Amino acid sequence: MELRALAFDVFGTVVDWRSSVAAEVSAAAARHGLEVAAESFADAWRGLYQPSMDRVRRGEVGWTALDDLHRASLDELLERFGMDRLDAREREDLNLAWHRLRPWPDAPEGLRRLHARHTLCTLSNGNVALLVDLARHGALPFDCILSAELCHAYKPDPRTYRMVPELLRLRPDQVMMVAAHPSDLRAAAAEGLRTAFVRRPLEWGAGGEAVADAAGFDVAAGDFVDLAARLGLSGS
Amino acid sequence: MELRALAFDVFGTVVDWRSSVAAEVSAAAARHGLEVAAESFADAWRGLYQPSMDRVRRGEVGWTALDDLHRASLDELLERFGMDRLDAREREDLNLAWHRLRPWPDAPEGLRRLHARHTLCTLSNGNVALLVDLARHGALPFDCILSAELCHAYKPDPRTYRMVPELLRLRPDQVMMVAAHPSDLRAAAAEGLRTAFVRRPLEWGAGGEAVADAAGFDVAAGDFVDLAARLGLSGS
Repeated sequence: MELRALAFDVFGTVVDWRSSVAAEVSAAAARHGLEVAAESFADAWRGLYQPSMDRVRRGEVGWTALDDLHRASLDELLERFGMDRLDAREREDLNLAWHRLRPWPDAPEGLRRLHARHTLCTLSNGNVALLVDLARHGALPFDCILSAELCHAYKPDPRTYRMVPELLRLRPDQVMMVAAHPSDLRAAAAEGLRTAFVRRPLEWGAGGEAVADAAGFDVAAGDFVDLAARLGLSGS
Repeated sequence: MELRALAFDVFGTVVDWRSSVAAEVSAAAARHGLEVAAESFADAWRGLYQPSMDRVRRGEVGWTALDDLHRASLDELLERFGMDRLDAREREDLNLAWHRLRPWPDAPEGLRRLHARHTLCTLSNGNVALLVDLARHGALPFDCILSAELCHAYKPDPRTYRMVPELLRLRPDQVMMVAAHPSDLRAAAAEGLRTAFVRRPLEWGAGGEAVADAAGFDVAAGDFVDLAARLGLSGS
């Protein structure tokens, strides 16, 4: 197996969206003297993620970047959670919470080890600007930002997975998709990519359900440092 | 002026293609007991760059990545320089010399300083795989690899310059194009980007002609460290 590149799912796999978004929601509420169930707000925002992309996938709306889907969902949630006194500028800033998500604690070191031998790219439904900001914010050593935005199709559209070996000029089996979500990995495998499942049991918080049905991938790892070790890369 | 991102031309601006390619040509020739005018070979290879892209620009051939244009030019030059005994594998490897170009000596430190405040991307006619390899090879801190390949149009096509603010979700005047070539900068300015001219008097070797007509840009700098200083970034 001549593995050359790793393509990373980002939300939930590289970064902890839930606690990061909740912290910014809580701070925005506090500035107006409000208290809000910030983790429920974060879960609800993330809950609108798939339905909002589905409207693009079905062609009900033209290509819309994730920043703009997030922004539309935010208006709905601010009303639902009694925070509609936030003005346009505050909403724009809160929407950028998704550009400032914290990496999981193992991510920077795990990526650093993997980077020593492999080309690392993102493959996310996040738009390019969002991913660039995330990588800068977390000092994450990605060599290349690849996004669903570049093919105007959201994962699990096959074009998104094919884009990685095409742009890196590799065979599909020289690329490994890394994700905490089996559905993402199965779609990548269908295009010939190798697959690494990484457990992220806290993605939906301490009470979240464990991912079931995570068997059948080329590698299964506890975190990114463990993934590096399983690929033969120890610390240096 | 709220400058947010810098977009770098690469060949000649960030990397010294001439001495890097010449060294690999010379080594390939030596493996066959041949001597070759390696710098002339490098100049001739680069000389076929614009004509080969012109065929794509005029639509005489469909979109063709720079790696493939380089590869076709290489066959022509190996014959012209008496090196046609190189086999297919050796030609493929020599073609990858363009993925291993050395940065100008000031580039890593200058980019590091600029990276502290600004988002840094490439905007090159090199294809994504080539640019990813170059950035890894030179440990260059680009946040994002943008390439003509992503819009299937070669600079100075306006779509290439527009892609930068569009993907980074910035206004054109928040982006500065950095190049050693006035024509590149003028095309960027026509799309509303700011411009920084960087002198690279050795791009075509010690006997190369100095760039004339380099006035009228927002910044003119002697190298990337000087560029960082002119943008208010000193060392840290």
